[in-house]
Amino acid sequence: MPDLYELRAQIDRIDRQIQALFEQRMEAAAQVAAYKKEHSLPIFQTGREAEILQEIDRRSSPDCRDGARVLFTNLMDISKSLQQHKIHETTPSVARLEQALEHPKTPPECPVVACQGVAGAYSHLAARQMFPSEELHFFGTWEEVFQAVEEGRVDFGVVPIENSTAGSVREVYELMRRHDFAISRETKVRVEHCLAARPGVTLNQVERVYSHEQALAQCSEFLKAHPSVEPEHVLNTAMAAKQVAGSSEPAAAICSRLGAQEYGLEVLACGIQNSEENYTRFICISKELYPTKEADTISVALSLPNERGALYRMLTKFAVNNVNMTKIESRPVGNKNFDVIFYINFTGNLYDQKIRDLLGDLSRELCSFKFLGNYKEDVL
Amino acid sequence: MPDLYELRAQIDRIDRQIQALFEQRMEAAAQVAAYKKEHSLPIFQTGREAEILQEIDRRSSPDCRDGARVLFTNLMDISKSLQQHKIHETTPSVARLEQALEHPKTPPECPVVACQGVAGAYSHLAARQMFPSEELHFFGTWEEVFQAVEEGRVDFGVVPIENSTAGSVREVYELMRRHDFAISRETKVRVEHCLAARPGVTLNQVERVYSHEQALAQCSEFLKAHPSVEPEHVLNTAMAAKQVAGSSEPAAAICSRLGAQEYGLEVLACGIQNSEENYTRFICISKELYPTKEADTISVALSLPNERGALYRMLTKFAVNNVNMTKIESRPVGNKNFDVIFYINFTGNLYDQKIRDLLGDLSRELCSFKFLGNYKEDVL
Repeated sequence: MPDLYELRAQIDRIDRQIQALFEQRMEAAAQVAAYKKEHSLPIFQTGREAEILQEIDRRSSPDCRDGARVLFTNLMDISKSLQQHKIHETTPSVARLEQALEHPKTPPECPVVACQGVAGAYSHLAARQMFPSEELHFFGTWEEVFQAVEEGRVDFGVVPIENSTAGSVREVYELMRRHDFAISRETKVRVEHCLAARPGVTLNQVERVYSHEQALAQCSEFLKAHPSVEPEHVLNTAMAAKQVAGSSEPAAAICSRLGAQEYGLEVLACGIQNSEENYTRFICISKELYPTKEADTISVALSLPNERGALYRMLTKFAVNNVNMTKIESRPVGNKNFDVIFYINFTGNLYDQKIRDLLGDLSRELCSFKFLGNYKEDVL
Repeated sequence: MPDLYELRAQIDRIDRQIQALFEQRMEAAAQVAAYKKEHSLPIFQTGREAEILQEIDRRSSPDCRDGARVLFTNLMDISKSLQQHKIHETTPSVARLEQALEHPKTPPECPVVACQGVAGAYSHLAARQMFPSEELHFFGTWEEVFQAVEEGRVDFGVVPIENSTAGSVREVYELMRRHDFAISRETKVRVEHCLAARPGVTLNQVERVYSHEQALAQCSEFLKAHPSVEPEHVLNTAMAAKQVAGSSEPAAAICSRLGAQEYGLEVLACGIQNSEENYTRFICISKELYPTKEADTISVALSLPNERGALYRMLTKFAVNNVNMTKIESRPVGNKNFDVIFYINFTGNLYDQKIRDLLGDLSRELCSFKFLGNYKEDVL
């Protein structure tokens, strides 16, 4: 029996040969693509793939069959991605993006910004974090924010997309499916709840505390430690602050520091939520695409064909393009098969030809594909 | 320039050579594994992988570099999966499963079943679908159902896990993380809302309609067509039926057919929800694992290492084992990086050695890994 050293040397020899053959195969595939382009033939054909895999299967030893099928599927997927970098096949949706890059628009100097809720809410905080001094409009619902952006009545809209504890904001994902827009920025807001009361009211005097149901739940440990205080639900944290400000009872609100400030309340205790690390991610949407060289994250929504290994094969494209998928989230489309749409974030910038090649590849091969934006990730 | 026919013949020749080398490599890797096992060395080492990839990188032409890295990563992952089928390296969690298979338990003949809510709710419907005549206990919350199962006070618990329109039931995913149990069955329930009133009350007489907020939203088109009827929220659809049954006002409830029946109401209209295709998937959990040969779906919860392509590499294992991933869902772990736990369903049965090899492989390599169950999918 050969020893470890010999076996490894043997594997290294095999790898060298495989690599040389891999390079030859990529060269031959590039020639096939060039030939097809010259003769106006479709570049990518699926029949040929099935044929090759059938041959692989026929020639394989039983033990290696499943592995060989995966290896050659992978080899062909790599080959397609590399060919795409030579021929830059495009699709209407990618062509639109390329047009936007050629004549890049810049955002208005004094933009009008929309967010949902009332002054002092966490959406307000997020909007102020991105737009410190711009004109803000408050809308009753997230849908109205999307509509205002789509119809050009505002330049930007700020909406929450996920919370680090509660997860995705379901309704916003639904709205992303139905509306046209581009994500142009993102920001993360630390959820830090305060107990706030009218000036002069002390913690010992407080008999009732108003807040949003979820905020009360997030502060359950604080409330347990103060059993004489009775919690009561209101619609949102800013409303709670407003109500406390306008009433004469010895009550407090659980709200953000901005919320307390907005309604002239005094903060009695701060950071009273159970978990130190509670963050909400907000996106900023616009009607126009404002491409920047600093953008490092791309968001897309897509459906995969109902085929074995469809997600795996898509990720081969990401791997070959050296792209890191930073988030994958599925939402139901609402049929009896529980089929889903994937919302995916990956690293990249639209000015990179390789990224546009990848987008072209994805939008050509997938059942449905929607580019959602290219922006800079807000790193905490 | 060679023509298409010649180029394809060239590619076929290259593929034959690569395939022969692939088989040689798998044979050499099997010998390495056997050698290590004989000499009690750790089978899988990561340092060697990085070394090989560095060499690949060094030898590669610039155009092929990204592709070669992916191909050889893939090749090594395939090699590991095939080696695992020869040596069956196991882990404590898989060893426990194997023990359960050796002495399989059978479910009690007259099991006690728990579900959340009240008689007539959709959970009741799901429990009845799986257990037509068994003893049912109703609990106030999903958490109490999990606790009753974990503490052995009931044999089975029935909880909803996802709806085809609204998506996952967030709280149940949270509970799955915190409790020990096995999913032993699943069922899908069609959500079909009825308008039900006390016998003798006609549709024209109805002035108010009670139901759960979501059910009212799901019937918004029906309600729009009957503007004289005023909708009013109650805690759940079964409560709505109960309330209507006990009151003398000309009111109706939106609830399931079972809910109407349970409280002696008459169905005035059926299938009044907006979408024809609304289904909820329920799982049945138990303390014991009851392995069956008919089970075709495996559920696991896992975290991936924070490395580029971690999901991709895990899916290579699925592909090599010819396993189809049927669902992937992510839930936040609640930290500031928005890290997630993946809940994954894939095809397979525990009695299949290949599946146990795959589970061994996953539980050894991943940061966290929890087997949730093996059961038969309820196909609609």
